[in-house]
Amino acid sequence: MLPLAAAARLQGQARLAGSRVAQRIPSALRVASAPMARTRAFSLFPKAAYASSASSEKVPLSSERYTYLKRDPSFKKLSQEDIDFFNSVLPPSAISQDEGDLEAYNVDWMQKFRGQSKLLLKPSSTEQVSKILKYCNDHKLAVVPQGGNTGLVGGGVPVFDEIILSTANMNSVRSFDEVSGALVCDAGCILEVLDNYLAERGYIMPLDLGAKGSCHIGGNVATNAGGLRLLRYGSLHGTVLGLEVVMADGTILDNLSTLRKDNTGYDLKQLFIGSEGTLGIVTGVSIMAPKRSKAVNVALLGVSSFEQVQAAYKRSRDELSEILSAFEFFDEASINLVKKHLVAGNNDPLESSHPFYVLIETSGSNKDHDDEKLTQYLEGLLTDEIVQDGVVAQDTTQFKNLWSIREGIPEACSKTGPVYKYDLSIPVPVFYDMVEDMRARLNEAGVIGEDKDVEAVVGFGHIGDGNLHLNIASKRYSDEVAKVIEPYVYEWTAKHAGSISSEHGLGVFKSPYLHYSKSSTMIDMMRRIKKMMDPQGIMNPYKYLPEEKK
Amino acid sequence: MLPLAAAARLQGQARLAGSRVAQRIPSALRVASAPMARTRAFSLFPKAAYASSASSEKVPLSSERYTYLKRDPSFKKLSQEDIDFFNSVLPPSAISQDEGDLEAYNVDWMQKFRGQSKLLLKPSSTEQVSKILKYCNDHKLAVVPQGGNTGLVGGGVPVFDEIILSTANMNSVRSFDEVSGALVCDAGCILEVLDNYLAERGYIMPLDLGAKGSCHIGGNVATNAGGLRLLRYGSLHGTVLGLEVVMADGTILDNLSTLRKDNTGYDLKQLFIGSEGTLGIVTGVSIMAPKRSKAVNVALLGVSSFEQVQAAYKRSRDELSEILSAFEFFDEASINLVKKHLVAGNNDPLESSHPFYVLIETSGSNKDHDDEKLTQYLEGLLTDEIVQDGVVAQDTTQFKNLWSIREGIPEACSKTGPVYKYDLSIPVPVFYDMVEDMRARLNEAGVIGEDKDVEAVVGFGHIGDGNLHLNIASKRYSDEVAKVIEPYVYEWTAKHAGSISSEHGLGVFKSPYLHYSKSSTMIDMMRRIKKMMDPQGIMNPYKYLPEEKK
Repeated sequence: MLPLAAAARLQGQARLAGSRVAQRIPSALRVASAPMARTRAFSLFPKAAYASSASSEKVPLSSERYTYLKRDPSFKKLSQEDIDFFNSVLPPSAISQDEGDLEAYNVDWMQKFRGQSKLLLKPSSTEQVSKILKYCNDHKLAVVPQGGNTGLVGGGVPVFDEIILSTANMNSVRSFDEVSGALVCDAGCILEVLDNYLAERGYIMPLDLGAKGSCHIGGNVATNAGGLRLLRYGSLHGTVLGLEVVMADGTILDNLSTLRKDNTGYDLKQLFIGSEGTLGIVTGVSIMAPKRSKAVNVALLGVSSFEQVQAAYKRSRDELSEILSAFEFFDEASINLVKKHLVAGNNDPLESSHPFYVLIETSGSNKDHDDEKLTQYLEGLLTDEIVQDGVVAQDTTQFKNLWSIREGIPEACSKTGPVYKYDLSIPVPVFYDMVEDMRARLNEAGVIGEDKDVEAVVGFGHIGDGNLHLNIASKRYSDEVAKVIEPYVYEWTAKHAGSISSEHGLGVFKSPYLHYSKSSTMIDMMRRIKKMMDPQGIMNPYKYLPEEKK
Repeated sequence: MLPLAAAARLQGQARLAGSRVAQRIPSALRVASAPMARTRAFSLFPKAAYASSASSEKVPLSSERYTYLKRDPSFKKLSQEDIDFFNSVLPPSAISQDEGDLEAYNVDWMQKFRGQSKLLLKPSSTEQVSKILKYCNDHKLAVVPQGGNTGLVGGGVPVFDEIILSTANMNSVRSFDEVSGALVCDAGCILEVLDNYLAERGYIMPLDLGAKGSCHIGGNVATNAGGLRLLRYGSLHGTVLGLEVVMADGTILDNLSTLRKDNTGYDLKQLFIGSEGTLGIVTGVSIMAPKRSKAVNVALLGVSSFEQVQAAYKRSRDELSEILSAFEFFDEASINLVKKHLVAGNNDPLESSHPFYVLIETSGSNKDHDDEKLTQYLEGLLTDEIVQDGVVAQDTTQFKNLWSIREGIPEACSKTGPVYKYDLSIPVPVFYDMVEDMRARLNEAGVIGEDKDVEAVVGFGHIGDGNLHLNIASKRYSDEVAKVIEPYVYEWTAKHAGSISSEHGLGVFKSPYLHYSKSSTMIDMMRRIKKMMDPQGIMNPYKYLPEEKK
């Protein structure tokens, strides 16, 4: 362990340097112990908010907001015979037609999408799901699968009267192999619960996201959730070992393999990863858990330009390399919103403001080695004036605090009203141009400001994954603002061969824009797959694939 | 850098200890510099061998060996009109009907499978591939796509008169992004050429296999090749960013994304990874290259039981963790064959024989840290008597030598005649039981020995991936031996919920046994996908999916 220079400690954190020349601390930065299992605030997804029907009554019906969506008249409307059938499959506690009960399932957590379902089913076994879907398919009843209802594109709530099939009652760990790290569990297990389960056994879930306290692993798989650990452990296409899926006609696809390698036939599970419930319902997940790192460090850096953010990232790949587990960035506008709206902002550990911030996390097996790598890396950044200031967390509280600033941004954005949220994959060199162009565009349109519709345009995200979150925090929805933003944001992204949905998916919100990221040949192939697997089209209709032009 | 104890050097290698008690060298093991880019012998795939028709004439026709395979009479037989069309698409140098030319493409490198194709096409562009397939689809001409012809299951050579479409003339790098590491290239690029290209730029291909000097990246993708770096960088399902695929009807599926994250629609590329050319021809590949590690170490350990191999593996996950890049094992029978048949065997650096051997590779960004981790790990293994002896490579020559022992095993097995090769995923705890059971079974049948059909039963493979290679080296093919082995080996694997093809794929060899690893529901879904994407069935027929029972 390197000695700690007492002078380097400010505000209880190991300080890099306020001014490089005056305060640089060569080889004297102590990077203090951080706990393996961190606990964060998961207040981002306040399910309880739905209890007050007063607030959610304001959420307009999706069918009124997206007027081009029409109920497919070929879908059957729910009848007493249908209810009787579902009552024969499920116990009374697993069925609800109560409007109050349904409220929290009809409306998404952002209060942006509202469906009109009259029936909520909560099966507790794969067999029950199979019976329900077979019946729905036979009678052409539309179904929307729902996990933790933490999606951002309206994919998990109904649009019209689709039956809501919640995975909430399927929440058991089926098996865990302590040698290989293969975890097999029900789709309705909450991500954080699984992560805690694994923490006790020295393992970690290969994904992590702000919604971990509410989101279901089945929903994570169905939406190919990205999040904060993708940089280190890769996407679910690599870490999911097997799936159990109930197809639209009730067939159970039993592919819950725990093998790391298996080249026997088409890798069917991959089709369901990211299919947002349009091909079938994921009921079971087998996933490869990595070993939990013994040493974790977190640093927050103040940076004066986006070029320097890129330079810091480039170096981190060389110098932190195998221990780098997160490289997140956010801009000054982001932290200003956090400071303004959230308690977390009071804990900003840097002395002055910076145009950009970088949050770096390392995870490794040897604390001394990691500390040394991080110290050398950070000193190099200071020496070469790539960063202007920075702190390294010394204990759990500081660790949580630094992460809470980054994780608090989406919540802070939504504090004054609706947020126009864009989740884009863009080549890193032009990453921030998107934010600046949008800000300039909205300024020019005269819609940003104290008494204007838009409060702030903020950019943050996962530099390591080329994933920008562009959030436009506003006080109210406005067609005028929407028209300034769209389709410009999608055209801009398409021009740079980016993706209009990096990790959030398509849902009802982005399906009309799919052609900005996929060719008509690709979309045609997707339609054929959908038609083959769900010929009646009962699985999560009105979403994902754009309406076919007739 | 830790000092080197002079006494620790034997045969130019840093020795761990011949006898733990007498010679253990605490904290004094120097782990010397290993080069980033290693060059190995690639003599395993001697294409030149096919020049001598004398030797390859012995290879029986696959259609005679697999008598249940019948030529599909609905496929058109090649006519002069067809040749005329192909001549209108390709230059004369890219078409051959010459029997001598075709020999090397009709017969696989193991000289186990022989097709009867009369036409070889070598397009040099995606558009040419598209024109060829459209014509073949319209006229119902069967096609077999071929990369480097290094497959192990007969998937890349014809069975009857399928037209061979070789990707050999499509071998350009299309682009490389030095910031993100995204490499885009033609399907016919040779893996080793790509790895060398990346080495010059500080990056590495995320896969590596013995055939790297011949195999094509398109073939690697089409077979979902595993290999030696999977433990560290994951499977191609995670590292492939995008594909360009020509479908059976000539449609070009343009999905050459370079984005790390993209949640816009079904991830179609995944279907082609591991589809063995049965759905379309991969013509372009976009793949994420990791940074090349600055420090690489290789150690070879002698171990007295398979339980101890497992114990060493378990510890390596904790102690080497993020720097572990290979954990390979082989048994005494394996190294004996290498010593007997290959020069590499003369370089066995361990003093005495051991029942088991483990080859460990670490790759990291800081040599001192890696050396320290490896030394501590190895000392711990010696202290706790988990390993009996070991060496750590000190220079390039030693590095190559240690790897050449492991990589020489398949070649050594084939030195006296045909090899019954099985590539199984099996839970690690029962991993070696398979080898012992098979050895006992063949012994009992009285077929192993000097004057018997079978020379040796050897087990080796990738412990870290749960992937056992079971090779039965023999002097001649024998129905009697084959019946002792099969279907026992598949039944055994199915009983342990394993995979009958961990990384080699199905091809013509394993397709009849698919049901041992996949349910009829899964196989049915595969058939439906095949039928949807290749309704005429022209793509690589007679393989992959078992014949449908009528």
